[in-house]
Amino acid sequence: MTRIPVIFDTDPGQDDAVAILFMLGAHEEIQPLALTAVAGNVGLHHTSRNARIVCEWAGRPDIPVHAGADRPLLVAPVTAEHVHGKTGLDGVPLHEPSMALADEHAVDFMVRTLREAAPGSITLCPVGPLTNIALALRRDPGCVRGIREIVLMGGAYFEAGNITPAAEFNIYADPHAAQIVLQCGAPITMLPLDVTHQAQTTAERVSRWRALPNRCGPLAANIVTSLERYDVQKFGMHGAPMHDPCVIAYLLAPELFAGRRVNVEVETTSPLTLGATVVDWWGTSGRPANVHWINQVDADGLFARMTEYLARLP
Amino acid sequence: MTRIPVIFDTDPGQDDAVAILFMLGAHEEIQPLALTAVAGNVGLHHTSRNARIVCEWAGRPDIPVHAGADRPLLVAPVTAEHVHGKTGLDGVPLHEPSMALADEHAVDFMVRTLREAAPGSITLCPVGPLTNIALALRRDPGCVRGIREIVLMGGAYFEAGNITPAAEFNIYADPHAAQIVLQCGAPITMLPLDVTHQAQTTAERVSRWRALPNRCGPLAANIVTSLERYDVQKFGMHGAPMHDPCVIAYLLAPELFAGRRVNVEVETTSPLTLGATVVDWWGTSGRPANVHWINQVDADGLFARMTEYLARLP
Amino acid sequence: MTRIPVIFDTDPGQDDAVAILFMLGAHEEIQPLALTAVAGNVGLHHTSRNARIVCEWAGRPDIPVHAGADRPLLVAPVTAEHVHGKTGLDGVPLHEPSMALADEHAVDFMVRTLREAAPGSITLCPVGPLTNIALALRRDPGCVRGIREIVLMGGAYFEAGNITPAAEFNIYADPHAAQIVLQCGAPITMLPLDVTHQAQTTAERVSRWRALPNRCGPLAANIVTSLERYDVQKFGMHGAPMHDPCVIAYLLAPELFAGRRVNVEVETTSPLTLGATVVDWWGTSGRPANVHWINQVDADGLFARMTEYLARLP
Amino acid sequence: MTRIPVIFDTDPGQDDAVAILFMLGAHEEIQPLALTAVAGNVGLHHTSRNARIVCEWAGRPDIPVHAGADRPLLVAPVTAEHVHGKTGLDGVPLHEPSMALADEHAVDFMVRTLREAAPGSITLCPVGPLTNIALALRRDPGCVRGIREIVLMGGAYFEAGNITPAAEFNIYADPHAAQIVLQCGAPITMLPLDVTHQAQTTAERVSRWRALPNRCGPLAANIVTSLERYDVQKFGMHGAPMHDPCVIAYLLAPELFAGRRVNVEVETTSPLTLGATVVDWWGTSGRPANVHWINQVDADGLFARMTEYLARLP
Repeated sequence: MTRIPVIFDTDPGQDDAVAILFMLGAHEEIQPLALTAVAGNVGLHHTSRNARIVCEWAGRPDIPVHAGADRPLLVAPVTAEHVHGKTGLDGVPLHEPSMALADEHAVDFMVRTLREAAPGSITLCPVGPLTNIALALRRDPGCVRGIREIVLMGGAYFEAGNITPAAEFNIYADPHAAQIVLQCGAPITMLPLDVTHQAQTTAERVSRWRALPNRCGPLAANIVTSLERYDVQKFGMHGAPMHDPCVIAYLLAPELFAGRRVNVEVETTSPLTLGATVVDWWGTSGRPANVHWINQVDADGLFARMTEYLARLP
Repeated sequence: MTRIPVIFDTDPGQDDAVAILFMLGAHEEIQPLALTAVAGNVGLHHTSRNARIVCEWAGRPDIPVHAGADRPLLVAPVTAEHVHGKTGLDGVPLHEPSMALADEHAVDFMVRTLREAAPGSITLCPVGPLTNIALALRRDPGCVRGIREIVLMGGAYFEAGNITPAAEFNIYADPHAAQIVLQCGAPITMLPLDVTHQAQTTAERVSRWRALPNRCGPLAANIVTSLERYDVQKFGMHGAPMHDPCVIAYLLAPELFAGRRVNVEVETTSPLTLGATVVDWWGTSGRPANVHWINQVDADGLFARMTEYLARLP
Repeated sequence: MTRIPVIFDTDPGQDDAVAILFMLGAHEEIQPLALTAVAGNVGLHHTSRNARIVCEWAGRPDIPVHAGADRPLLVAPVTAEHVHGKTGLDGVPLHEPSMALADEHAVDFMVRTLREAAPGSITLCPVGPLTNIALALRRDPGCVRGIREIVLMGGAYFEAGNITPAAEFNIYADPHAAQIVLQCGAPITMLPLDVTHQAQTTAERVSRWRALPNRCGPLAANIVTSLERYDVQKFGMHGAPMHDPCVIAYLLAPELFAGRRVNVEVETTSPLTLGATVVDWWGTSGRPANVHWINQVDADGLFARMTEYLARLP
Repeated sequence: MTRIPVIFDTDPGQDDAVAILFMLGAHEEIQPLALTAVAGNVGLHHTSRNARIVCEWAGRPDIPVHAGADRPLLVAPVTAEHVHGKTGLDGVPLHEPSMALADEHAVDFMVRTLREAAPGSITLCPVGPLTNIALALRRDPGCVRGIREIVLMGGAYFEAGNITPAAEFNIYADPHAAQIVLQCGAPITMLPLDVTHQAQTTAERVSRWRALPNRCGPLAANIVTSLERYDVQKFGMHGAPMHDPCVIAYLLAPELFAGRRVNVEVETTSPLTLGATVVDWWGTSGRPANVHWINQVDADGLFARMTEYLARLP
């Protein structure tokens, strides 16, 4: 079987961290070319550090981690420390990572890698604000040819926004970057709150991770336990939605998901609706489809996969 | 029992027509002070004519029908003839009404009636674009004191828009009027697509109307049968949603409904999201609650009421 | 000679007061059907009171004064008390007016008067926010037929805004009303800051008013002397611009002015540019001309006329 | 005397070409580190080719020319072929340039050069859309430290826009990039239409270039003669405004110019006013000054300098 070459663009973040572990557990199926860090849930200093910490947890200090944009294109920076804590990974002990950041800027790395790759060969997996991807696309529009697919976590349509009533965090944090990405012409699959809210932790699901006879299973359990508090209290959920892990699950088992090919545009002008992802679910707009918008997941299947792959880690 | 004094502001429209019949069947519970017509689903010429036709169907030519605004405040007029047909009531035979329009303009009627009424005594039931109500509120801000509650059909949040991906028709057709109304300070209950899509016709439900031994039951059945075609084809529904009848059902039996007191704002600036109703369901905005947003209905209970009251008509 | 029948819509305001005196001095040329007051420079309580005070100064308690809108259509109210003082006429002694407000609301008066008038017979002269005119146009679109011309003070294009960097006060205070008026189809002449800033008081010009052997000449001199302070200090002018008197001068002596027929649109959506009057001076937009935009005045001629007509007052 | 190290960012463009000649004539005063080309007046293919042609005209094939962004950040591309012709330099014969484009992308060149330079040492001179500068600032925010000043041609406030009634071309073509640049914190001097319209060619001024006993003088004369047609016909000018040469003149002789330190913001949201430069000339906004906005030039002095420096070229 051919491994899927992936650039994982991330702002860890607790569910990001679980997604990275999940991906690294799938080393026979997914080939992570690099983690690229972006400012988002917390500042770039923390996200680029956390990405390395998670790699070391998984015994993978060999994965290059590139730091990218430290702020959004136009809007003022906004973070989600109220969700993920000051460090972005509050609730578990964080060590000082031994591995260094890669020298190359994340955007330069993307541009070079996509340029050098066979056409349509690289899968981009952004799970934070889309600043890095947008900068790469504008710095070198031709690099889009190297992209096989962009599978991203972001947006909300049939669910309420989680940062404002109109918007999901990743899109709101850099709506202009999101609009650039959605218009780039590459195949795009979006995993929005509509689907990630169907993938919530439960005591039973998390207990299976905690029971794994390795380091990373219980670690993932601890991370989500910390995250659950916010979602239960703020949004009346029974657990924490596995936003970013949905991206990895989609790569490994797209059959767990269902959606529709539709037009999606991002609101970039009005303060009231800034960052809203306007999904033409019923074809009322006449605009062409540019996104595979996922709105259903087999949550039991997803958690089964997560457990299976977390078990393969040290 | 005291009858609820109501001004029913409407742009019939097929589900409007059914709502008017429903209301007139409830003559022991609801006192319709007048129907006020507004341009919406079709032009004012048709809506003010259709309102009289429906009154005559129900044997109530005594109800005053006032014509109001023939266009929205600022945006270009938009109609829903693709849904309701050229006349607004396509699919059933329309006679020339015998009753005349009232001399007084709908806005003047509202201002005068609300001024003369006891404080907090009149229920406004707008089921079309909110132009008339907005003009009355701005023409005489003091008239708000006469309002007991505004119970309106409009908006969408957890459901997709029906005129654009971001907006429901009534709000989109005059978003500035909607924003004026939502800021007026009177108690407001909104019945959006979120709830009206739960109240869809079925063959069985409509067959009960058709079986009624009067004129109006089968008539209502014919009207919704014509409407069903659009919703089934466009939105994959199994029947036609009873948008406007929900307003009457809410007056008669609020216990059939559930919702939440929240902040709702209308997007008035961006073309992409114009007319979106931004509902702060989770309290992320810090803005004060101004609307009782309904998102659940006991549909069987609603159709049972409709059948019961349609049966009381000639 | 036929007198020009005028409805003067106003928010006095110091230059408004001088404009009213100027108009009342021209009683052989201009027939003021009524003053209609609107909230603007100060609240409606003050503007509707000040309008009566000025009529009494001029010995014209017979002119009907109607109170109209007490707030703009959509935006939050903004006043110009920093310019005109708390009362709107700070700097001169204000008496309690003997004349009562007319019973009829300003909007109802306009609608009725325009409806009853011969087509194309009435000149509307708005010199404040355009809320009253917009409400009349939307309450009864047909009333536009009675309008001969709308000659208004408002806007700025080649001059900087005076309330924000992008907007002149009258338009900014109700941009949605302004856009409604500019789209109404009646002939419109606008007297913006571009021209009113060419009509500034000087010591010599004002001394001629002060030397008039009547009550109203020295009164007008005192009013503008109070106004001068703000404009000199804030905008580096040498005197106070005679914004609203330009409207009366244009009625009496259009040959003093020059301009161009152009398209003008009002910005109603962006906070940064809200209320900007976008003038297509060079025909780059392809939009049809809807306004006669005045950008030049013979200031000496204007002040000569003002002195001449102020002299005819008591 | 120390030469001013300059990166000249350009989309030639006829007045761009004259500005480049002007700059290269001033080789004792200005050290052009590179020309960086951007899509603007015409596409990147033409602007990056034209930049090299102009260098060869001036006998300076040693100047590196880097190609940059081929489209704006977010808005759809707009060109000014109606002004500059299909090639961007219509009206003079264009040869195939011998010199090659530099390998490095313009944005990478800027980032590297600014990073390696002494703090506050490099002057950026953008005379086209600001896409390259914005991408460099977002790709590496720290590179701002290398900037001494940004002296740019763009914007309009007291003059009408030249591409829409509200906007000047360079800002309109990429308003988001412009807003990023204006917020970057480096010292910025803007030369808007307010000033460049004061620097128009006349027959006498151009005749002095034509009379120069070299190749480049008559060439510059031919270029502006072609440009004059558009401005005379469209904007009623007597000649062609020397937009971009004002930037070079400002570097050489700032004493020819006068302006004010003010706040300038770019409209990025409303279609009506997109790209407007909102200048707080009178301090009504409370926003901090971020731009030295030039609104006066000694035009005779400017043309004298242009003639003097054009004379130094081959």
